Amino acid sequence: MSDDSSTRIARHLRSLAAAADAGTKLPSTRALAERFGAGPVTVQRALAQLVAEGVVETRSGAGTFVRKRQAAVAPVDVSWQTAALGPERPGMPTIGSSMRQIPHDSIAMHSGYPEAELMPLKEVRSGFARIARRDDAFTRPPTAGLPDLRRWFVDDLGADGWRDTDAVITSGGQAALAATFRALTTPGDAIVMESPTYWGAIAAARQAGLVIVPVPRTDGAPSASDLDDALASSGARLAYAQPTFANPTGDVWSPTQRDAVLAVARDHRAFVVEDDWAHDFAMDGPAPAPLISTDRDGHVIYIRSLTKSLSLSVRVAALIARGPARARIENALTVSDLYVAPVLQAVALDVVSRPAWRTHLTRLGRALQGRRDALVGALAAGAPMIEVTSVPRGGLNLWASLPAYAADGNPTDPDVVAARALSAGLSIAPGSEWFPAEATGPFVRLNYAAAGPDRYDEAVGILLRSL
Amino acid sequence: MSDDSSTRIARHLRSLAAAADAGTKLPSTRALAERFGAGPVTVQRALAQLVAEGVVETRSGAGTFVRKRQAAVAPVDVSWQTAALGPERPGMPTIGSSMRQIPHDSIAMHSGYPEAELMPLKEVRSGFARIARRDDAFTRPPTAGLPDLRRWFVDDLGADGWRDTDAVITSGGQAALAATFRALTTPGDAIVMESPTYWGAIAAARQAGLVIVPVPRTDGAPSASDLDDALASSGARLAYAQPTFANPTGDVWSPTQRDAVLAVARDHRAFVVEDDWAHDFAMDGPAPAPLISTDRDGHVIYIRSLTKSLSLSVRVAALIARGPARARIENALTVSDLYVAPVLQAVALDVVSRPAWRTHLTRLGRALQGRRDALVGALAAGAPMIEVTSVPRGGLNLWASLPAYAADGNPTDPDVVAARALSAGLSIAPGSEWFPAEATGPFVRLNYAAAGPDRYDEAVGILLRSL
Repeated sequence: MSDDSSTRIARHLRSLAAAADAGTKLPSTRALAERFGAGPVTVQRALAQLVAEGVVETRSGAGTFVRKRQAAVAPVDVSWQTAALGPERPGMPTIGSSMRQIPHDSIAMHSGYPEAELMPLKEVRSGFARIARRDDAFTRPPTAGLPDLRRWFVDDLGADGWRDTDAVITSGGQAALAATFRALTTPGDAIVMESPTYWGAIAAARQAGLVIVPVPRTDGAPSASDLDDALASSGARLAYAQPTFANPTGDVWSPTQRDAVLAVARDHRAFVVEDDWAHDFAMDGPAPAPLISTDRDGHVIYIRSLTKSLSLSVRVAALIARGPARARIENALTVSDLYVAPVLQAVALDVVSRPAWRTHLTRLGRALQGRRDALVGALAAGAPMIEVTSVPRGGLNLWASLPAYAADGNPTDPDVVAARALSAGLSIAPGSEWFPAEATGPFVRLNYAAAGPDRYDEAVGILLRSL
Repeated sequence: MSDDSSTRIARHLRSLAAAADAGTKLPSTRALAERFGAGPVTVQRALAQLVAEGVVETRSGAGTFVRKRQAAVAPVDVSWQTAALGPERPGMPTIGSSMRQIPHDSIAMHSGYPEAELMPLKEVRSGFARIARRDDAFTRPPTAGLPDLRRWFVDDLGADGWRDTDAVITSGGQAALAATFRALTTPGDAIVMESPTYWGAIAAARQAGLVIVPVPRTDGAPSASDLDDALASSGARLAYAQPTFANPTGDVWSPTQRDAVLAVARDHRAFVVEDDWAHDFAMDGPAPAPLISTDRDGHVIYIRSLTKSLSLSVRVAALIARGPARARIENALTVSDLYVAPVLQAVALDVVSRPAWRTHLTRLGRALQGRRDALVGALAAGAPMIEVTSVPRGGLNLWASLPAYAADGNPTDPDVVAARALSAGLSIAPGSEWFPAEATGPFVRLNYAAAGPDRYDEAVGILLRSL
């Protein structure tokens, strides 16, 4: 790594950008690395410098482009805010590295989403074309969402006894989660969470001022005694869980485990927030019936999003629940967001109502299975010391355990490994972000749906060198 | 009003619905009223009954339709939730009546939005058609939003010294407001607000657990001494205001008043949240420059939404601010919502970047002026005892004061008047919802942009009879 090369590359790019129109694409990281005989780290340092200067912008998956030039701005003094805002609030949430924008030619195994080719893009495009001609796509919907879309979500539970008025449409699963935590707790309350679990749930709970009480998974699910203990000792009324293809581990609760968790929730008069994030990502046949399908008396608050399976642009999810809890959550959602753009609701309904949707899901399941097997194989062949904790039957990720010690005898730090891998062109998520408390080992999360199998060997090689 | 007619109408509709396919349109309120020789109140009672039964649904602006039939649902007992959730939180926000869905043939003067014909629907439709063909409409955007859209928002401030990185794209103004309150305060803090003011800001502040300290407007703006007093006595660091065409009064702060407010904010090291909701609704020439255009050091947090001026389906707004405050708000937005659907961001940018957008705004300003004059005229002619507090030069609403006493000598209750008007076919918003504390008089808000001038005389007649 030479600062001189980085400076030279930055100078070169600055002069290219100065001579080009806004929007012009600049050479790729690889081309620059070759031309200057520099490593990707060096090139990326130069690019980061130019992004910071506002000269170029990187667009995920597309490359680096010249930005429109902005007038010079006189320095502004905002230091008074430091005193006005006071100390950072305890547990101020951090945004997971899976939301990171990375150079377009890096291998994207950090993302929380499948790549575009695994999504029904053609159907979504024609959905937008069809819906944009309709008048009801531009009329204010009920704040709780379009009745037919709510109906689709409750029908898709595959259980009797639910009405469309039990559902509220939200702009994505994160909005539903954050509103649920805000609506049903007051700051300082405790919330029980499986550990490890989705970073966004951890961040939303922290923003709501909650104390997170982690429970481990035993054979894939929180044991009744652990859950009982956590609820009793903390006084929490809310537990957050992903019973099906948990993010990041891929675990699935068995029917017995589901019944046990529900029984404990009933005993404690507690709610279980069921985040069914991977409902559409089952590999062999449909996903198991959600927990809520056996809930009769309003203990489960169910959240299901279509953003990951339909399109990043169709930010539509449903929250299904009963009773005063549902009313409080709907109120919180309305106060934060009023309603979800009707065009997005109508496109979602249009796409999922067509036969092509079922075909797509079957094809998607097979594709995910193929990728999962390819990545498991590439790891076994290229980095046998990295252990895949369990091979998931659904979801988008492998949860892998790095060797406890590096070659130099120091304990492995997955944050350092992830940073090294990133600068070598592989973006992964360090496991630490998935633990509400201390991590129980040096884990990393590898998303096989965000990067294609043609780059798995290369990815494993970089990971190996980053240990 | 006869319960018998209402029952007969309900029975008639139930049999129509039973014989018809889902989606079939049912007779209008007027047709039913004529056929059964009943008043609109009676018809609406019957309709409300059928909506509650899940037999029919009303779609705003379109009519009443037969719903898909749902299987009977066994009763569910959720009474345990009452104890589990505990008392309602103090100041639990209520949703303003402007979000109400009303029978399609009622006169909609309650809404917070202009009706469809005042929106650039054609341009928005072709925007969706164009953008849905592009790949970047389906690629994950930076969490803070598309750089070019952020640039457009800061350029449109018409002030030097702002960079696109000062802006964050949010899914509508309400999301920006709610995140700002959450990010910059802790529950129990005070917030200063103009009074009367936007119900959604009041609701968001209450949801964030804030104590609202109201300040009156003196000649259209909070006086420096009132603001100084409110900030000093409450310790608030945050003030919420609409300096331009305030909702509901239509007031505009003069340049002197703007300078005075900013000076007080500086003295107190406080933030002013500037909700520029009516930027696109000026009647004579462009709206005054926003407060933020003269703010150098990060005291103003500026929010501007395109939802009301572009389309209900383009839920896109920007928050512009500087310093650590902006960073905290961006973090809060990401944790609640991750990012705004890229297709909506791209459509917004597409439409506002075309010459037709400026033409539209000019035409819109003239249309609003015509409607404002027509409604002021209809009130003066038909209900001279209703006083329009001031004739606005922008925005969507008249803020009108009802006579202090009804004919029977009792004080006028605007909630009762609004309820009576609603059952007679006119939907208006009672003024009480716009006051963070007690109302200072019997006000109502009349939106002239949501209902066309052809119905103003009828509306004034109903209002008069509802007094």
